Amino acid sequence: MVHHYHYVIVLLLLFFTSISSHQHHDHDHDPSIISTMEQFSGYSILEPTSFSSLSYDAQALQNQIDELSGFSDAPAPSVTRVLYTDKDVLARRYVKNLMGIAGLSVREDAVGNIFGRWDGSEPGLAAVATGSHIDAIPYSGKYDGVVGVLGAVEAISVLKRSGFKPKRSLEVILFTSEEPTRFGISCLGSRLLAGSENLANSLKTITDSQNVSFLDAARSAGYARDEDDLSSVFLKKGTYSAFIELHIEQGPILEDEGISIGIVTAIAAPASLRVEFEGNGGHAGAVLMPNRNDAGLAASELALAVEKHVLESGSVDTVGTVGILQLHPGAINSIPSKSHIEIDTRDIDEERRNQVIEKIHETAIRITKTRGVKLTEFHIINQDPPALSDEAVVNAMETATKELNLTSKLMISRAYHDSLFMARVSPMGMIFIPCYKGYSHKPEEFASIKDMSNGVKVLAFTLAKLSLQ
Amino acid sequence: MVHHYHYVIVLLLLFFTSISSHQHHDHDHDPSIISTMEQFSGYSILEPTSFSSLSYDAQALQNQIDELSGFSDAPAPSVTRVLYTDKDVLARRYVKNLMGIAGLSVREDAVGNIFGRWDGSEPGLAAVATGSHIDAIPYSGKYDGVVGVLGAVEAISVLKRSGFKPKRSLEVILFTSEEPTRFGISCLGSRLLAGSENLANSLKTITDSQNVSFLDAARSAGYARDEDDLSSVFLKKGTYSAFIELHIEQGPILEDEGISIGIVTAIAAPASLRVEFEGNGGHAGAVLMPNRNDAGLAASELALAVEKHVLESGSVDTVGTVGILQLHPGAINSIPSKSHIEIDTRDIDEERRNQVIEKIHETAIRITKTRGVKLTEFHIINQDPPALSDEAVVNAMETATKELNLTSKLMISRAYHDSLFMARVSPMGMIFIPCYKGYSHKPEEFASIKDMSNGVKVLAFTLAKLSLQ
Repeated sequence: MVHHYHYVIVLLLLFFTSISSHQHHDHDHDPSIISTMEQFSGYSILEPTSFSSLSYDAQALQNQIDELSGFSDAPAPSVTRVLYTDKDVLARRYVKNLMGIAGLSVREDAVGNIFGRWDGSEPGLAAVATGSHIDAIPYSGKYDGVVGVLGAVEAISVLKRSGFKPKRSLEVILFTSEEPTRFGISCLGSRLLAGSENLANSLKTITDSQNVSFLDAARSAGYARDEDDLSSVFLKKGTYSAFIELHIEQGPILEDEGISIGIVTAIAAPASLRVEFEGNGGHAGAVLMPNRNDAGLAASELALAVEKHVLESGSVDTVGTVGILQLHPGAINSIPSKSHIEIDTRDIDEERRNQVIEKIHETAIRITKTRGVKLTEFHIINQDPPALSDEAVVNAMETATKELNLTSKLMISRAYHDSLFMARVSPMGMIFIPCYKGYSHKPEEFASIKDMSNGVKVLAFTLAKLSLQ
Repeated sequence: MVHHYHYVIVLLLLFFTSISSHQHHDHDHDPSIISTMEQFSGYSILEPTSFSSLSYDAQALQNQIDELSGFSDAPAPSVTRVLYTDKDVLARRYVKNLMGIAGLSVREDAVGNIFGRWDGSEPGLAAVATGSHIDAIPYSGKYDGVVGVLGAVEAISVLKRSGFKPKRSLEVILFTSEEPTRFGISCLGSRLLAGSENLANSLKTITDSQNVSFLDAARSAGYARDEDDLSSVFLKKGTYSAFIELHIEQGPILEDEGISIGIVTAIAAPASLRVEFEGNGGHAGAVLMPNRNDAGLAASELALAVEKHVLESGSVDTVGTVGILQLHPGAINSIPSKSHIEIDTRDIDEERRNQVIEKIHETAIRITKTRGVKLTEFHIINQDPPALSDEAVVNAMETATKELNLTSKLMISRAYHDSLFMARVSPMGMIFIPCYKGYSHKPEEFASIKDMSNGVKVLAFTLAKLSLQ
């Protein structure tokens, strides 16, 4: 299909780069292109408004990101937006409104994955999807995930304004709970879409730290109304011919090297663990040191061991973090009787990562012996394999960046994303844009309007190409 | 005054031990004793009801302890009763009602120290005081402090039922916020009574973790109404001729050695520190290990160093605890950008304890260099000297235990108490009773009815003796 594939690209280049002629293209033998032409010919791309409107839209995207950041339970510039809270529900409504304005038909599933569809000329074909998440961990920033949702809606609008007409339908997906904040499960929505039976089962009984069940929380947000079995969310294989996610890098590489676009070839394999120790606690003054079994010190020792075991791997690609460490009862004059820690470890090498997990487990057991505490929990919450991007999708992204004259580099995503799970049911690819100092998951997180609009253009081009394949 | 001193003791022994004759005592030369006799002669201690009522009262004390434990923000058997919360206010009302029933005149000061007074025959003399606290750290037990408040009211009632009439007035004191839970200040009420100018000043501006000011919190509980300056709480020196506190040991010694009563000769010197580290945080997947400055690991390292430095002191009397360790933002996939830890360290040797604090400080500074984090706070919240019991008070307690045929031992209090601060403005002594396995500050905390009633009897005897000195 090289022939009208080229046509579309030139068409979009006209739009993006103000080359104002598009008449010398032969495509009569292709009905889908004829319909494209009909659409297109009815729309003048020659008025300067077309271009000003595009740059305007870049600003509009920034405005939308700023507006969405207002739905937060933390004071600006921090953003806290946790699954199914009032602020999350308001933010979802905001995105659905944007989808409606963009002329997308909106659908939600039982856990609140939101789908905005633009029917192609052959709606029976597997669709091309793009999207990300809008939930935000406590005191984080406003770009993580959001750029890939609002940017996707904008990419669709760009294609519409350009007069482009897709063959395969295009869908924007807002994924539920990419962040594990509330129920300890990351990428909850995309895991379910990818058909995780285990998750569907555990969601029937799981509760948050306030003992609110997942199902009650979902219902309070208007989801999971008439069903406890959430397997209705599973996607049929072949639903999508491709999935592309636009995201800030969350690392410093693109900014350091002055490169506009990162093309992700693989996503590192993440795992998360929950560990709990228990001791006798007691009064901080009255219980002498030899009589103690301090669950808090056990946790501190394990936290430092996580760092040690990760560094022992010898690879810069291995990372491990203790982001949660809680002591019970949590009083200055009380020896901790319980501790709870959550560990995140990742690697592009699954085997090496699993060895780190094994060492962490061995150390936890050793600590129980040296400190006389009980290991009341050592639970591997998730232990996922890495994901590889699809070659055709990578090619489409690379071509798009070339045609837009943007610098790009192939890279690995060390952070994981809904794409990790979408890769199980669809060919997958990711587009990274630079972010300030690689900051993410904190208020200083920032991506420039220019970098975001580059990302949106590459996404639009890539969607257009894949929608015709 | 040995003469009628003996009289009183015999009188009480009659009451406690059912010896039913008290006629061969000459005391006519003492008006206070005559009035005592008038009181006494109108009250028959010969009816069996007197003794059954005493044993009944032991049960009544247990019932009161159980009832008070119901004013809690944690599910039983845990008790959580934090300063100026609704549950604290209800518990205070309960104690004031008990004081009223016992015929005490009730007074409260600006921070909610509660005083229940029984006027003696010479109300102009410095009074003899006893008391403790009823606030409870999160998820703790129902005996810590409470035994010394409800037990004191019961001791007064015992004296009244016995027909005893004090010369010096007797006062039961409920101290505000012995526990540092809410504002990070331990023994808040007794520190103020002891005249701490620093505390009076800091209370004007201090806030809790929810940013509620101390003054607003106090006002919500009905205190500090018309004043920001709380120096009105300071006691004049000489207000009390003696202060005695009845308390569970919070250690295992009395139970292990099968001894009924501990007579405290000194209270270990406590200190508490607040330390905060700050780093850059970032995404747990995207920021590689060499680029991290993890504030959480800095805190874990310091927590383990506290233990190390305490053990290095070489003395079993040195203790150190990290009861609070908090990470920000506290998400599994976010590198901690801030950590907050609170350290409690104590020793009967003030100098040795201060050396431990110095080592902790040096280690905190070393950690900032090795981990590239900032030490944003290293605050010594309090650093108090030890307190010695008053010899006359110790003698009175020892004599009381002998006359009640109870085993006793002289001991050190490693936990500190309001007595530590009352010792600054009054001769002080403490009575310890055994508690199960030395457990305290947790739900398993327990003292038997028999041990509590022994403690109440010793307290009653001691108050009686000191009220006549």
